[in-house]
Amino acid sequence: MAGTIESRLAELGIDLPKPSTPAANYVPFVVTGNLVFISGQVTTWNGEIQYAGRLGEALSVDEGYQAARICGLNLIVQAREACSGDLDRIKRVVKLGGFVNSAADFTDQPKVINGASDLMVEVFGDNGRHARFAVGAPTLPLGVAVEVDGVFEIA
Amino acid sequence: MAGTIESRLAELGIDLPKPSTPAANYVPFVVTGNLVFISGQVTTWNGEIQYAGRLGEALSVDEGYQAARICGLNLIVQAREACSGDLDRIKRVVKLGGFVNSAADFTDQPKVINGASDLMVEVFGDNGRHARFAVGAPTLPLGVAVEVDGVFEIA
Amino acid sequence: MAGTIESRLAELGIDLPKPSTPAANYVPFVVTGNLVFISGQVTTWNGEIQYAGRLGEALSVDEGYQAARICGLNLIVQAREACSGDLDRIKRVVKLGGFVNSAADFTDQPKVINGASDLMVEVFGDNGRHARFAVGAPTLPLGVAVEVDGVFEIA
Repeated sequence: MAGTIESRLAELGIDLPKPSTPAANYVPFVVTGNLVFISGQVTTWNGEIQYAGRLGEALSVDEGYQAARICGLNLIVQAREACSGDLDRIKRVVKLGGFVNSAADFTDQPKVINGASDLMVEVFGDNGRHARFAVGAPTLPLGVAVEVDGVFEIA
Repeated sequence: MAGTIESRLAELGIDLPKPSTPAANYVPFVVTGNLVFISGQVTTWNGEIQYAGRLGEALSVDEGYQAARICGLNLIVQAREACSGDLDRIKRVVKLGGFVNSAADFTDQPKVINGASDLMVEVFGDNGRHARFAVGAPTLPLGVAVEVDGVFEIA
Repeated sequence: MAGTIESRLAELGIDLPKPSTPAANYVPFVVTGNLVFISGQVTTWNGEIQYAGRLGEALSVDEGYQAARICGLNLIVQAREACSGDLDRIKRVVKLGGFVNSAADFTDQPKVINGASDLMVEVFGDNGRHARFAVGAPTLPLGVAVEVDGVFEIA
């Protein structure tokens, strides 16, 4: 029997990628009390980079928005792992930290990170509304366009 | 009857801005347990940008300090909202994350973020002493000089 | 009688620096509930800068790795202070936030931050496995190569 959030994902036609496993000495998430701290997720889908390059140079705001949405999908799949597969245990998206690979004169980081923020509200409704920051970075791992980390509250 | 912290604000002659309301799918703060995660606050006063530009280029360290102080005032007003208007419920400023719009050779981010840190101690005394980071960013939303997010503990 | 983690440090031949004390209105760490939020630590050893400069320019990935390891040693010594000297009270390294002083075309931030991540697992074993982000910064305080902040869980 699919849970409420899984059903919503199906209704919305949202596929989740496979959860990535870091090759290094860190983990995708740590649960402490009711909080899950999730590692910075990038614009990969099942391990393949989808959006590389800098906003204000190679990429448009719309492309950045899609890139941030992919980061958000990777966050959700890690949060699901943290809940042993049951997305209904997610009580709240607490905080997203958004880094946007930015040319020096690019100042629309919030419009880019909206791609992750909108996704959270689509999927979790009001429980998806979160605190966040959106800042520029001069470069990011693998040249990806966006990196977003997160804190979620679970039951 | 004004609370202790409200009285201190009045004695110090510190005005708080109006709390901003994000136009997008995120919120100014999320309360989880005793912690409040507050979204990155920028150098706006009642919605109007006060300090834009890059430290080491357009702005001096003193201007950056004032910019960071404004971010801090915006954090405090959001923390007050999180406490339903009662600043005396704030037990501790736990963490500030400071991003400074920086020219490549600017390395005085700590002196800039001190504008927010000093404010917290002015207002909350020892309970205002916090952990923090202060880093450079190549650009920030709307071209603002400083962005600071925060974690507060409330009763 | 040395604790388990102190013994492991001795076996591994790992020295810890002295804990730094900020000169400004912030503190090295704040304890809230079971969590310790630790301020961004840089590449100083007992107050002296060890690695300054930008990855992809002045510094190699190996040098960056060593720089991040020093940030990690500074984090551990602050965590020890938070535990009144007893490292065995550290239950989990929850989260590291890694900022790498990066040339515009440098994209190996994860390899650099591995210097801190590997250290945590050397010292704390599986309890050292953490969530993290690794991002580029255009410049950092004092020109240091790396800054890493952290969240630890303590008993």
